[in-house]
Amino acid sequence: MREAYQSRLDGLADELADMCESVGAAMRKATDALLNADLALAEEVIDGDLQIDALRDRAQEDSFGLLALQAPVATDLRIVVSAIHASGDLERMGDLALHVAKAARRRHPEPVLPESVRPYFAEMGEVAVKLARQVEQVIHSKDIEAAKTIESEDDQVDDIHRHLFTVLMDREWPHGVAAAVDVTLLGRFYERYADHAVSVAKRMIFVVTGRMPGYGTDDDI
Amino acid sequence: MREAYQSRLDGLADELADMCESVGAAMRKATDALLNADLALAEEVIDGDLQIDALRDRAQEDSFGLLALQAPVATDLRIVVSAIHASGDLERMGDLALHVAKAARRRHPEPVLPESVRPYFAEMGEVAVKLARQVEQVIHSKDIEAAKTIESEDDQVDDIHRHLFTVLMDREWPHGVAAAVDVTLLGRFYERYADHAVSVAKRMIFVVTGRMPGYGTDDDI
Repeated sequence: MREAYQSRLDGLADELADMCESVGAAMRKATDALLNADLALAEEVIDGDLQIDALRDRAQEDSFGLLALQAPVATDLRIVVSAIHASGDLERMGDLALHVAKAARRRHPEPVLPESVRPYFAEMGEVAVKLARQVEQVIHSKDIEAAKTIESEDDQVDDIHRHLFTVLMDREWPHGVAAAVDVTLLGRFYERYADHAVSVAKRMIFVVTGRMPGYGTDDDI
Repeated sequence: MREAYQSRLDGLADELADMCESVGAAMRKATDALLNADLALAEEVIDGDLQIDALRDRAQEDSFGLLALQAPVATDLRIVVSAIHASGDLERMGDLALHVAKAARRRHPEPVLPESVRPYFAEMGEVAVKLARQVEQVIHSKDIEAAKTIESEDDQVDDIHRHLFTVLMDREWPHGVAAAVDVTLLGRFYERYADHAVSVAKRMIFVVTGRMPGYGTDDDI
């Protein structure tokens, strides 16, 4: 019984790690689709979102089952409650990758992004995918220091995001309103994706320390 | 002991209802601040957000405490798990009201909104505040039918939000890129606020029925 319980707790961490992998892959493909107007990749991300939702459902059901049948306490309870929160954050990261993919599909075969802002999105995409991978590692390692560095990586996305606004607000922006609207929303999707990654990392700090280090899905707009 | 337990469970519902009232008031004031370039009101919302965060912290700590000490099962467990989710959604609604208030402050004394889109925001604001009030009622009444109507109210916000995009994308949009960026983000804040309200309503359906009626923080962009 005890053994089954422990393996269900470990299973929960594996499920979250799987979600990290899925939402990281989704954002990698979505960014490629966005940068290269690749319709097939965009469709792949769009079709794959249901699977991420299913992973979230499973993690939440398993968490609920553990609470109902095992009444965990102390660290174990923190693991389960954190899994409830983290699976929600990770599912949302999947949605945000989905939104990027849908933007790429909506404008296909036209590129969504004016050439001048492409590098910002290439960089935000790279950092976003890296954050998902780092969160996955932290879920397994429970390494507090690694969890903390995720927050500083997020600062990079915030910096690029802010810079993007100065580009948009420049009186000389020559690409028109429709492109500005697309760029505004897309920038926000990456920024929120990174925020949710930070939030998951903070949940892992809570699991280990019992203290929640300031809530993390806040954005700075 | 049993009595104290029951009163703590009831207290949790009261805390969520308080949060509804706070985030409803925040969005009402933020919308007024936005429509009337009212700096004092905007500051009030901005200063008040910390209190909403504190309400969320308290609801989550109380939920955790109930799980740790009482090991609730069945409906009681659903109440506590739903409170964990709902308090997160409600806190986020507070953040979105905060973003609206910050936009009003950032452009003060200039109005943020071009005259032509003001009615859309007046209407979205009205529906958003109404949704918060309806969610508060559902938390107390546990009335499934009332919870379901919240979803159709949300459709109203989605409709206005979509319409706003057609206005923005019109080649004749005469207000420039900076105004378009503001309108894009503000529209999204209202739309997300309504999505989170729906999500809380669905949690209440889960409390009563034991089934989660499709997850609700999805947006349609």
